[in-house]
Amino acid sequence: MDQYLEMISAHMEDIPLSGEPKNLYEPVAYSLENGGKRIRPLMTLLACDMFGGDVKAAIYPAIGMELFHNFTLMHDDIMDNAPLRRNQPAVHAKWGINTAILSGDALFALAGKYVSNVPDRMLRPIFDLYHKTVIEVCEGQQYDMDFESKESVSTDEYIDMIRLKTAVLPAACLKAGAIIAAASVEDQEKIYRYGEFIGIAFQLRDDWLDVFGDASLVGKQTGGDIIANKKTWLYIQAMEMGNERQRHTLTEAFNNMISDNNEKVGVVKDIYDRLGISDMAQENMRTYYARAFDHLEDIIVPEARKVNLKELARGLFDRKK
Amino acid sequence: MDQYLEMISAHMEDIPLSGEPKNLYEPVAYSLENGGKRIRPLMTLLACDMFGGDVKAAIYPAIGMELFHNFTLMHDDIMDNAPLRRNQPAVHAKWGINTAILSGDALFALAGKYVSNVPDRMLRPIFDLYHKTVIEVCEGQQYDMDFESKESVSTDEYIDMIRLKTAVLPAACLKAGAIIAAASVEDQEKIYRYGEFIGIAFQLRDDWLDVFGDASLVGKQTGGDIIANKKTWLYIQAMEMGNERQRHTLTEAFNNMISDNNEKVGVVKDIYDRLGISDMAQENMRTYYARAFDHLEDIIVPEARKVNLKELARGLFDRKK
Repeated sequence: MDQYLEMISAHMEDIPLSGEPKNLYEPVAYSLENGGKRIRPLMTLLACDMFGGDVKAAIYPAIGMELFHNFTLMHDDIMDNAPLRRNQPAVHAKWGINTAILSGDALFALAGKYVSNVPDRMLRPIFDLYHKTVIEVCEGQQYDMDFESKESVSTDEYIDMIRLKTAVLPAACLKAGAIIAAASVEDQEKIYRYGEFIGIAFQLRDDWLDVFGDASLVGKQTGGDIIANKKTWLYIQAMEMGNERQRHTLTEAFNNMISDNNEKVGVVKDIYDRLGISDMAQENMRTYYARAFDHLEDIIVPEARKVNLKELARGLFDRKK
Repeated sequence: MDQYLEMISAHMEDIPLSGEPKNLYEPVAYSLENGGKRIRPLMTLLACDMFGGDVKAAIYPAIGMELFHNFTLMHDDIMDNAPLRRNQPAVHAKWGINTAILSGDALFALAGKYVSNVPDRMLRPIFDLYHKTVIEVCEGQQYDMDFESKESVSTDEYIDMIRLKTAVLPAACLKAGAIIAAASVEDQEKIYRYGEFIGIAFQLRDDWLDVFGDASLVGKQTGGDIIANKKTWLYIQAMEMGNERQRHTLTEAFNNMISDNNEKVGVVKDIYDRLGISDMAQENMRTYYARAFDHLEDIIVPEARKVNLKELARGLFDRKK
């Protein structure tokens, strides 16, 4: 895996971003230098490797997927009014909204260019996958914003939102690797579903860490989603499980009727604790991981070829931050 | 031509935009219903027709180019803080900046999907052209924004900016039609250059109309570019031609030192008039049109096949608004 991560880094550094106009390309370069775990391009390479494909042929679409991911972060940070990204000022905070819009657009354009750098016979399936995915990710972001002002969100609606916003991209990254490796359509579908369930579990883990994680490990104060009135799985579940008084308190809290943030987080977390939401959430995550692994087990390749992908998924599941 | 315009309208109406999430797709539908002259997709169809291609095979990339164009308008209107687009509230003015960002992204994604709907053997050249173009358009928009705060802009810099921001897209639209018609690479290049020069002349005409056009025909008060301190060809030329006093006055005016807008427009226009900028600008436009037509003449197809494209270009040149 380390060798693949190095390959990704080397290709990321080779992206030509030193040209003119500087005000367009510097923010793009900044957003990419700022790091990230490169999980998505790694997934493309690992999937390609698993199906016995030529990993070198998968590197450009892998990079393209990572560029697309970074584009979504740049625009999402504007929409969410998020000042920081990976502990550094977000592009819009550093250069202004107009720059973040336009440099994001350029990054999106660049993503398409990299994704299309595949052998001719794979161009059509790769692009169909890519276009389907980028539109779904936009839909997911819209649902996420819609939910902020929506009074009631069901578990199904929430899961479908995070599927679109978060899970279809890793799923597409894996499928892209499978396409490059000329895997069968059935196997492409299985690895896609694996990625989708892993992606959903990943986001559920994120939600859980935000409330129940160890602040010293997470690297930021817990409760951010509660403060931002995000209707995560935890909140939705508590609203379904709680008695009338608890639901009333939660509704008040999520309508900014508790002005002190520490108090708000404390009140909400207390209800979560009484209802056993943490255990339920972990059980729910395990279910999604299990469904993911079922699809991986269904793929007939030598077991040794699955080791890296399994290790990656386990790392995402066990992560403390 | 009318038949092609109807074909474009019919396909534009068929774009599936009634689905969920509504807050994503309604603004997209609104921006497309709001019209526009559909010149760019028409260019794709006319070029395809000129080279004897199957126009039906060109309709999807033609629509894709128009979607891309509308995406740029949606984001540009945010950046330019422009409240109106085609006499209707711009998307960001009607729904807010976040909606205009995300619906724009979805429109950009949709554009790529339509552009890729071409016969397999044309997918690679069409996509290479598309990606090159979208990145150049982003660069042009950045240069345009950079020029606002740049003290001095040369004629060459200005022409290159409008080439990127405005001219490469019609050029690409024409070339896409030529690619679909399986025109030779040389002919593809000639029609591209034709479009590029037409596009530059088109923007120069726009700049001219903004100052010297008939307000009752243009449909808005003239002098908008002067009020917005846009360093157009007219301004750059006046700064090159004017004496010290005139340059001083222009510099003051474009640094907001004349607070009354009517007075500002009057002062600037008076200098343009004394220097004969209007005639020079029209001569300059004619030069670009002539260069465009030279490239069209160079293409060996029956003269009758060029009639529509010539008529379109003449219409753009003579337009009063």
